[in-house]
Amino acid sequence: MRIARFSIDGNVAFGAVEEGPDGLLLDIIKGIPYADFELSGTKVPLSKVRLLPPVLPNKVVAIGRNYAEHAAELGNEVPEVPVAFFKPTTSVIGSGDSIEYPSFSEELHHEAELAVVIGRMCREVPRERVKDVVLGYTCANDVTARDAQRREKQWARAKGFDTSCPLGPWIETDFDPADAVVQCTVNGEQRQLGRTSEMVRSVEDLIVHITEAMTLLPGDVVLTGTPAGVGPLNVGDEVAVTIEGIGTLTNKVIKRG
Amino acid sequence: MRIARFSIDGNVAFGAVEEGPDGLLLDIIKGIPYADFELSGTKVPLSKVRLLPPVLPNKVVAIGRNYAEHAAELGNEVPEVPVAFFKPTTSVIGSGDSIEYPSFSEELHHEAELAVVIGRMCREVPRERVKDVVLGYTCANDVTARDAQRREKQWARAKGFDTSCPLGPWIETDFDPADAVVQCTVNGEQRQLGRTSEMVRSVEDLIVHITEAMTLLPGDVVLTGTPAGVGPLNVGDEVAVTIEGIGTLTNKVIKRG
Repeated sequence: MRIARFSIDGNVAFGAVEEGPDGLLLDIIKGIPYADFELSGTKVPLSKVRLLPPVLPNKVVAIGRNYAEHAAELGNEVPEVPVAFFKPTTSVIGSGDSIEYPSFSEELHHEAELAVVIGRMCREVPRERVKDVVLGYTCANDVTARDAQRREKQWARAKGFDTSCPLGPWIETDFDPADAVVQCTVNGEQRQLGRTSEMVRSVEDLIVHITEAMTLLPGDVVLTGTPAGVGPLNVGDEVAVTIEGIGTLTNKVIKRG
Repeated sequence: MRIARFSIDGNVAFGAVEEGPDGLLLDIIKGIPYADFELSGTKVPLSKVRLLPPVLPNKVVAIGRNYAEHAAELGNEVPEVPVAFFKPTTSVIGSGDSIEYPSFSEELHHEAELAVVIGRMCREVPRERVKDVVLGYTCANDVTARDAQRREKQWARAKGFDTSCPLGPWIETDFDPADAVVQCTVNGEQRQLGRTSEMVRSVEDLIVHITEAMTLLPGDVVLTGTPAGVGPLNVGDEVAVTIEGIGTLTNKVIKRG
């Protein structure tokens, strides 16, 4: 099932995405998708709504240097321990929202990533239980001020500025993260292309590693690292992250207003 | 005014702390302290409530190496740009709550810090407006798994594990951060002693730096770095952070259950 979050006429709801005769429809979900829920049967065309980030996370835990080829392209080794950092909730935007070029950077980069959406509160998750705490998967762009990342030892500003965490377009609950294609285009031109099978640490490894230290809450998001091919974003660019079996997350880069 | 957050008989409320004939009282606040509010006149003894973290932040932005003597004691230079990182909401506990020794560390350290509590949504705050976005100040302990901090390039686990962010006991709204004594004791013995005047970057500098990149929300917290004297915490220890003019934040270290 594909679960989107959206607003229509000032109301916010979750809906299950389905094919209709004239395009995609959203069957409005009664309640929230982190518990048992029912579909209402009330359907609205996707074209009539504004897609929102598919979750409102309490926290986003992201992983750096999880594809060997990407680590190498920035002159880094694959780390012995996963590099985990946070992106704040104020950085989260949805598909169709704009990425604002930050004032303190002159080198903004795209990083296409598979995002895991947590469905249940969990801590110290054993490897074999990881599937039980995952609600589904979505596309993410770990937008990075590369110059600030080099200058600042911790990455709170470089990877945590407002609009630096596009998520969407929806959550796919029927998805196998073992070997899906992750792609990034800028203005229709391919920049990044990788497969999740190239990850140094798997989704299971990462959830075990993170929950050894901290509780994940329903709606929390784990970003799993980016494949090779990261590169610049400029004002006016349209960047699209496509993951096979999920969909496409599209955002335009604008001047910070 | 001192504003505490507490629970009593299963209800959660904010209250203004005042002296009563038989000890401290809490005058229950109608509404939330991030907007205009009134005192209800209904008072409960502080001794009858459980103190909670004085805020439920959306994010905690912390600053590393902001006291030269502390940077030096760990063999670090004072950074050219402030070192900013996040602690997640799942790490926040109140005064009287327990710090759980994390399973992945054998070297837990205390770090006594002045914490700034944000009162208004803000971004790109000019230096002269910083005072307008600050609700008040509280004590913080930036509890750190020092061994994990050395091993892991980013500090999400080392400084973000559950219970690693004690805050409290309350918010002091009438506080001048220019030159207050910050102290940490373990089992009554003094370990850290510094003055906020020794900060490399002032509260104003830090709020300007952070909000250049990201929006701060009411209830968000900024930790301002720790003075020299950091050292080990062991299971059974009682650690207390005292800031002159605010109060004392006390937590016991327990084995993770």
